[in-house]
Amino acid sequence: MSDTVSYQDIEAAAEVLQGQIKLTQARPSPKLSQLTGCTISLKFENRQHTASFKERGALNKLSHLTEAERKAGVIAMSAGNHAQGVAYHAGRLGIPATIVMPRTTPVIKAETTRSHGATVVLEGESLTESREHALSLADETGAHFVHPYDDPHVIAGQGTVALEFLASCPDIDTLVVPIGGGGLISGIAIAARHINPNIRIVGVQTEMFPSMRQVLQQQTIKGQGSTIAEGIAVKEPGMMTREIVGRLVDTILLVSETRIEQAISMLVAQEKSVVEGAGAAGLAAILQHPGQFKDQHVGLVLCGGNIDQRLLAQVLMRDLVRQGRLVRLRIALLDQVGELARLTALVAEAGGNVVEVQHQRVFSLEPAKDAVVHFSIETRDDEQLNAMIENLKNAGYTVSRSYTD
Amino acid sequence: MSDTVSYQDIEAAAEVLQGQIKLTQARPSPKLSQLTGCTISLKFENRQHTASFKERGALNKLSHLTEAERKAGVIAMSAGNHAQGVAYHAGRLGIPATIVMPRTTPVIKAETTRSHGATVVLEGESLTESREHALSLADETGAHFVHPYDDPHVIAGQGTVALEFLASCPDIDTLVVPIGGGGLISGIAIAARHINPNIRIVGVQTEMFPSMRQVLQQQTIKGQGSTIAEGIAVKEPGMMTREIVGRLVDTILLVSETRIEQAISMLVAQEKSVVEGAGAAGLAAILQHPGQFKDQHVGLVLCGGNIDQRLLAQVLMRDLVRQGRLVRLRIALLDQVGELARLTALVAEAGGNVVEVQHQRVFSLEPAKDAVVHFSIETRDDEQLNAMIENLKNAGYTVSRSYTD
Repeated sequence: MSDTVSYQDIEAAAEVLQGQIKLTQARPSPKLSQLTGCTISLKFENRQHTASFKERGALNKLSHLTEAERKAGVIAMSAGNHAQGVAYHAGRLGIPATIVMPRTTPVIKAETTRSHGATVVLEGESLTESREHALSLADETGAHFVHPYDDPHVIAGQGTVALEFLASCPDIDTLVVPIGGGGLISGIAIAARHINPNIRIVGVQTEMFPSMRQVLQQQTIKGQGSTIAEGIAVKEPGMMTREIVGRLVDTILLVSETRIEQAISMLVAQEKSVVEGAGAAGLAAILQHPGQFKDQHVGLVLCGGNIDQRLLAQVLMRDLVRQGRLVRLRIALLDQVGELARLTALVAEAGGNVVEVQHQRVFSLEPAKDAVVHFSIETRDDEQLNAMIENLKNAGYTVSRSYTD
Repeated sequence: MSDTVSYQDIEAAAEVLQGQIKLTQARPSPKLSQLTGCTISLKFENRQHTASFKERGALNKLSHLTEAERKAGVIAMSAGNHAQGVAYHAGRLGIPATIVMPRTTPVIKAETTRSHGATVVLEGESLTESREHALSLADETGAHFVHPYDDPHVIAGQGTVALEFLASCPDIDTLVVPIGGGGLISGIAIAARHINPNIRIVGVQTEMFPSMRQVLQQQTIKGQGSTIAEGIAVKEPGMMTREIVGRLVDTILLVSETRIEQAISMLVAQEKSVVEGAGAAGLAAILQHPGQFKDQHVGLVLCGGNIDQRLLAQVLMRDLVRQGRLVRLRIALLDQVGELARLTALVAEAGGNVVEVQHQRVFSLEPAKDAVVHFSIETRDDEQLNAMIENLKNAGYTVSRSYTD
């Protein structure tokens, strides 16, 4: 195989993958369509065995190794979905696999990777250091290094997503695909353009790591921060992928952390489906740039579902705050018997459900004889909330909405 | 149609429903199978448009109304999934629908029901009062009352779940079905037994509302409490359904609230799928009574996905506590400079991630010169947690795990 990827390579990959990975569902979402003003179809790659599309590229790559290469084994570097994809399919195929992960990797991720039969090496303080260690290990041992995106077989494997998606939903006008290293969108763009030369391909990156966009605009790469979409937090896009993306992708949109969180919550509430940050990036792009998609049939690839349980719980709670369904009010009140009873009666009357109370009188700029109460209150929506605040103010209380501690 | 339901009625219902409701996916779950020691297949009724199976019975019922009955409209009483199912399909068919809900119904549920075009009447302090109001409204207006379960057309509609499930997974040995009023399991039992006379049908109720089991065992019904599975919190099972369940269902297992919560979290983590309490009851039964299912191929009906967002977030957090991945430690320490720094260093050394600290010295049984700190700490698992506690004790601290405030 040469250094470019053809439609035929992707068709060949589909044959390799047949029966070895899940043929994930692709279907319209009437509810998200109604909420966004475009027709949305979803491809559920979060339902692969290791909960991401990465299995496709990994398995296609592994299947192209020679007998000698298989015996020598493979090495990969990843703290995330690529690690799982390589470990799982190497285990299935009986190929020895070593996965190098940064030392800071949550142990649960290392253990999941080990459970597929892979050897896990925790080495390096950063992804860069880990990658160097993995490459030198590959040199020493003769094992084959499996790149997460900059490899024609990997790109061809990821491209099979588009074959399935467009077979199920042939009238898609625009495909929206998250970009980290660029492997997924490269494969998808090659396949989709071949099937439908007029299809629009839109890439999505988080505002914190807009590396592919910066490279293609000849800007310096400035990616940093702790994004919720760590699956696409890539500082250095691939060399092959940047060429393919530059050639075939129509535009790259950036999304904020807030929109990604909102998209995760919306997929839980409307689709009853759990996605990770990167998996929600496509819907976030529609929420943040609605004008780009109006009245089109948009295909979203929900590329992964591996989100930390505590993080998901927090995202759901923060979404309630954003919707005005959960609020924190700071209320100054006289420090006297019956005052709290009077206040809580007013809250209840307005339909508010108190879920947490903090009552203190030390850290306060109010007069020493007054107390400050912080209430966390559930309301139906913003409207009910504002009516409740109005009532409390009319009753003589000083009320402010607090977003911080 | 007579007062019993036949397999032919269910086949006829399937024809009525075709193209009008979602043909939800049914597929094996290798991950849940690995975790439970039986082979599990899942039927995703949480992915219906209104996120529950209730649409099937409602639509089949509506489709059997005469032209005159359609014009007179329908009435239903429900604060939950039956309300949505009736409202949505009545709206689609242009049949006027009135839904009576208890006054305490969360406004968001009333609004969702209204959004399908139904008239919502908030009346009654309890479901019993609301039902009486609905029946008297039906009497007054001549509108047709749609019973949530004790109706042959409703039961036949719910039975179509089994036709689809067994068509996709024909070698299922045991079907596990949550029981509230009994409509779903009645329809499923009739259909499944016809297709496979040897199939085992297991019902599941929450320990808080074991009404069908009590009725069939000639016990007094004693259901009460605030269960997370409010979809199956039914005090009075149907008359038709109790006859069918008594005749066709092999056993009814009870599940605890804790197991239901655990099952919800497991479906999120492993299947990336969101179910409500009732929807998780089947998996809860396998977790609580593993001996009943060992080595069998078990089909679970994930009957609904309507869970409150804050409740879901709390279930996910509480599950981390249960797994030993989130813990609250109460630690007494000397009230002196540097003491907190020393303590947190020990926690960090042991791999613990501090997520919340409460530091106070008023409500304490320790000597006045000491302070008490409550730490919420994330750990990898129970093992790491116990090692951390050991370390802290060896360093001279008094440490206890606190489950309450």
